[in-house]
Amino acid sequence: MTAHPMLIAGEWRSAPADASTFQPSNPSTGELLPDTYPVASSAEIDALLDAGLSASQTLAETDPTAIAAFLEAYADGIAAATDELAALASTETGLPVKPRLEVVEIPRTTGQLRQAAAAARAGDWKQPVIDTANNLRSQLEPLGKPVLVIGPNNFPFAFNGIAGGDFAAAIATGHAVIAKAHPAHPGTSKRLAEIALAATATAGVPTATIQLYYRSSHAEGHRMASDPRLGAIGFTGSEGAGRKIKAAADAVGKPAYFELSSVNPVAFLPGALAEKAADLATEFSGSCLLGTGQFCTNPGLLLTIAGADTETFLTTAAANFNAAPSGVMLVPSLPGELDASVKALVADGAELMGRGTQPTEPGFRAQPALLRVSGATFLGDPKAFQREMFGPGALVVVAADADELAAVAEHLESSLTASFYSASDGSDDALYDRLVPIIAAKAGRLLNDKMPTGVAVSPAMVHGGPFPAGGHPGFTAVGIPASLRRFGALRCYDNVRAGRLPATLQDKNPNGVIWRLIDGTWTQADVAS
Amino acid sequence: MTAHPMLIAGEWRSAPADASTFQPSNPSTGELLPDTYPVASSAEIDALLDAGLSASQTLAETDPTAIAAFLEAYADGIAAATDELAALASTETGLPVKPRLEVVEIPRTTGQLRQAAAAARAGDWKQPVIDTANNLRSQLEPLGKPVLVIGPNNFPFAFNGIAGGDFAAAIATGHAVIAKAHPAHPGTSKRLAEIALAATATAGVPTATIQLYYRSSHAEGHRMASDPRLGAIGFTGSEGAGRKIKAAADAVGKPAYFELSSVNPVAFLPGALAEKAADLATEFSGSCLLGTGQFCTNPGLLLTIAGADTETFLTTAAANFNAAPSGVMLVPSLPGELDASVKALVADGAELMGRGTQPTEPGFRAQPALLRVSGATFLGDPKAFQREMFGPGALVVVAADADELAAVAEHLESSLTASFYSASDGSDDALYDRLVPIIAAKAGRLLNDKMPTGVAVSPAMVHGGPFPAGGHPGFTAVGIPASLRRFGALRCYDNVRAGRLPATLQDKNPNGVIWRLIDGTWTQADVAS
Repeated sequence: MTAHPMLIAGEWRSAPADASTFQPSNPSTGELLPDTYPVASSAEIDALLDAGLSASQTLAETDPTAIAAFLEAYADGIAAATDELAALASTETGLPVKPRLEVVEIPRTTGQLRQAAAAARAGDWKQPVIDTANNLRSQLEPLGKPVLVIGPNNFPFAFNGIAGGDFAAAIATGHAVIAKAHPAHPGTSKRLAEIALAATATAGVPTATIQLYYRSSHAEGHRMASDPRLGAIGFTGSEGAGRKIKAAADAVGKPAYFELSSVNPVAFLPGALAEKAADLATEFSGSCLLGTGQFCTNPGLLLTIAGADTETFLTTAAANFNAAPSGVMLVPSLPGELDASVKALVADGAELMGRGTQPTEPGFRAQPALLRVSGATFLGDPKAFQREMFGPGALVVVAADADELAAVAEHLESSLTASFYSASDGSDDALYDRLVPIIAAKAGRLLNDKMPTGVAVSPAMVHGGPFPAGGHPGFTAVGIPASLRRFGALRCYDNVRAGRLPATLQDKNPNGVIWRLIDGTWTQADVAS
Repeated sequence: MTAHPMLIAGEWRSAPADASTFQPSNPSTGELLPDTYPVASSAEIDALLDAGLSASQTLAETDPTAIAAFLEAYADGIAAATDELAALASTETGLPVKPRLEVVEIPRTTGQLRQAAAAARAGDWKQPVIDTANNLRSQLEPLGKPVLVIGPNNFPFAFNGIAGGDFAAAIATGHAVIAKAHPAHPGTSKRLAEIALAATATAGVPTATIQLYYRSSHAEGHRMASDPRLGAIGFTGSEGAGRKIKAAADAVGKPAYFELSSVNPVAFLPGALAEKAADLATEFSGSCLLGTGQFCTNPGLLLTIAGADTETFLTTAAANFNAAPSGVMLVPSLPGELDASVKALVADGAELMGRGTQPTEPGFRAQPALLRVSGATFLGDPKAFQREMFGPGALVVVAADADELAAVAEHLESSLTASFYSASDGSDDALYDRLVPIIAAKAGRLLNDKMPTGVAVSPAMVHGGPFPAGGHPGFTAVGIPASLRRFGALRCYDNVRAGRLPATLQDKNPNGVIWRLIDGTWTQADVAS
C-alpha cells in the first residue's frame, strides 16, 4: 500500500517511492495496522518551513475574526465527525470510544478551539499597554513565523499537534502551525488535518495555516528547531527527545515550551487519613488507574507519615491495585518500561504492595503497580525514587515522622502539580504550613483535597512548572488566554503616528471588549481624547 | 594595598591573601587606579548562593511593603550620596559628572528603584486571575531563589547589577540579588552596595537580600549559572560572554534574560530627507555621538535611498563627525575595537565619510567614524556589514532604489529598536508600509520621527527583542511592571482552602489597588460574595 501523504503548503503530497515509512499498531490487539506513513525528507521539511513562514506573515496581518472563524469551523468539523474520529483514535491508541474519546476528549478539544477563537476575537492575550504622556504603546504580537507543535502519545485530540492546546494557542495568536503527528496515531492526525484544511477554505485563511508531517530523522528535527524560518516550538513528550529539541532551539534563542516529566506528589497528612483512610485510598486508586494511568498529572508519588491510618490506606489501595485488570497502553514499549521501573524500585529498596492482574489478552497490556518505601530509604537516593512510572504505577513514601517527611519534600524535583489532603478540623494545618513552602515552588499547581488528574480549561489553570515539568516557570500550556501569551512577541510603538498603529493600540477600543492598561488603569474604554 | 572585600551573607569579607586581584583604570587618563579587587573563589561563590537562597526563601514570605521600604530607603541613600557617587563613577568610567551622571543617570536610577517599590506595594506584576466557578486562582510569584544580575560597562548606575533595572525588578518581586559588579567600575558598585546594606537594616529585610562580588573565573560563572540554588539571571553585556552564560542556564531550564548586541537601524525615507536633510543629519549625529556612542540603543545602521537629499544628509553628517572631538570610552579595549571595525568595513567595501579628531590627550579615546556602503555591496555580505560598532560609529547604507532597500531590510538581524523618519505629507507612506512589516518583527521597539537613544522608564516601554538583542521576545528589561514579570513563576491554587490563599488571591482585595482578572473582568474590587 502507498504511504499516506503529508500536508505541505496546502496540498496532500506523497513522499517519493523510496522514502522510509512506518506502520502504527493497534494497542488493543498488538497487531500492526495496515496503513503506512512516510518519514519526511530534508526537502519536505524545507517545504514545510517555507510555506509556514509565508502563511505566518499573512496571518500576522489577518483580521483576528477570520482566524477565529477558522478555529470555529474546525471545531464544527471535528464535532460533526466525532463518531468517525473516536473510532479511528480508539483503534490507534487503545483508548475507549466511550466515555473517554467521545464524551470527554473530543468535546474538550472542540471547547479549547472555541475558547481560543473567542480569545482571538477579543484580543486580550495581547495585553495592550498605553502610556499617553509619553505616547508609548506596546502589546504582544505574533512572531511572524510558524510554530512547530509536537504532541504526545497520550491525548490523540486534546494535545494533538494538529488540534490540541498548543495548536489552538499558536493559531489564535496569528501563527501557522507545522504539526508533527505522534507516530502512534498518524491516521487520527491525518483525518484531523483534512478537517482543518477544509476549515481554512471556509474561513479564508491561507491553506498553509496548518501543515502536517508524521516523523523525521532526529537530525532533521534538530535542524528544524534551530531554523531561522521557525518562530517557536511547543513540545509535549519524553524528556530525552525534549531536551535535544530544547538545546537546538536555545542555541539560537528561539522560544520553546516543553512538558516533559512529572511525578505529581500527593501528600496525605495524618489527620486526613485518620478521618477517612479507606475512602482516600479508593479516591487515589481511581485517579491513578484512570486511563491506564497515562496522564501527565497522574499521581505517581505519595507522601505519608507512618501509622495505623497509613497502613489502612495502604491496605485498601493495595487491594484496589491487586484487583485492577491489566490495562491497554498506548505504544508497545510502555508495559515493559513500567515493569522495568517496578523492578528497579524494588532493587533500590521499595516493596511491591499491589500488582494488577497478569495480562492474558493480546495487546500492549500493563499490570498496575503500587509500591512503598520508607522515608529513610527514599532519602538514600531521592533521584532514583522519583523516576516517572508512566502508566498505572505509584510509589508511597512512608516517612517515620514529620521531620523526615519535610526532608523528603526538600528533595522533590519539579512537577506539574502538588496535592495536599489534610484534616477538616485543622489538626494538619501546622504540618501543611511547614510543607507547602518547601514544595509549592516546585510545581505549577497546588491542590487541596483533590486529585491532580483533572485539568480544567479555565483562565486561571496552570499546566506547567519549573523545568523539566514545564519549559519556563512563567507560562502555562493550558488555560486561555494565558497559554496564548507564550507565542507573543512584546512590541512597543514609540511616537508612532496614530494612523499607523495596530487597531488594538489606537485611541479607540477596536471591538469594545478588549481590556487595555491605559495610564495604569485596566479598561475597555477608549483613550480619553 | 589590601583588596577590597566582597559583600557575602551580610558581611564584608576579605578574600584570602593569595586570591587573584585586578585593578580598574581611569579612562580619562588611561592610568590604573590604586584600588585592587579580588576574583571570587569557588567557596565564595558557594557562600553567595547559600546566603542568597536563604534570603530569597525569607523574602518570598515577606510583606511587599517591607521590600518596597528597602527599595525606597536605598533610593534615598543614593540620592543623598549623589555627589560622591557621581565623582567616583566619573573616575572609573570617564563619563562626565554633569549632566550625565548627576543630572541624568543617578536620578533615573533612583526613579527606577522608587517605581519598583511602588510596583511591589501595588502587586500588579503578579497579574492575579480568579475563576470563581472552578475555584481556580493563579498569579505570578517569586521563584524562591536568588537572581544573579550581571551588569554592563556603560551604565554604572542605571544598569548596575547592584542598583539598576534588573536589580530593581528582581528585588521588587521578592528575590535576593547576587550582583556581579562590572570590573570597570567596582568602586562605584561597592559604594552602592554599602548604601544598599544600610537600607536592608532600615527596612528590616535580610542583609543577604543584596550581595556583591566583582569577578570570577569563566568556569565559576558557568557553574553558578547552572547551579540549582540560583533562580534566574539578568545579563547585559557582550555577546560572547552572554552566549556561554545562556548555554549553562538553558541546559538546566533556568530563566535567563539577555541583552547582547544591537545595531538599531534607522531608516531615513526620501520624503523626510527632502524636507530637512541637514536637520536630520544633525539630529542623527547628536544621537550617535552622545556619550561617545556607548548606548545599547545607539543608531549604528542607517537606511537610505540614493539621491541628492541623501548626499546632503551625508555631507552634513560627515562634517559633524569630522568636527567631533575624540571621546573617552569606558575600557581600554574599546577604541581599538572601534578602529578595527572601521578598518574591516572599509576592507569589505564601505567608504569612510567622516572621522573625528585624532586623539592627542591621554586616556581611552576613540575617533568617531561615519561610513557609507551601497545597498548592492551590503547585500553581498549582510552579516559583515551588521557588525556592532560599539561607540561613536555608524554605517549608512545607500540603496539604489526602494526594491534594493527592501532587500536590505530582509537581511537585517534582530535589534532593540527600529526607527523610521518619513515625510509629513504622506509621500513616504507607501514605502513605510512596505518596510515596516519586514523590519518590525526584528525589534522590540518601533519609532517614528525620533532617535532611539532615549529609553523612558514607562510601563509601555520595551527594551528587548529577538535574540541576541534580547533573551526572550515576550519580555522587556525596562518598563515597570512589565520588566518585573520576567522573574515570576506562574502558580495556580486549585481548590485551596480560603485561609491558605496568598493575600492577593483571597476574595478581599488586600490593598484596594491591585488589579485582578476576576471571571474575565479586570477589577480592583473584591470577589463578589
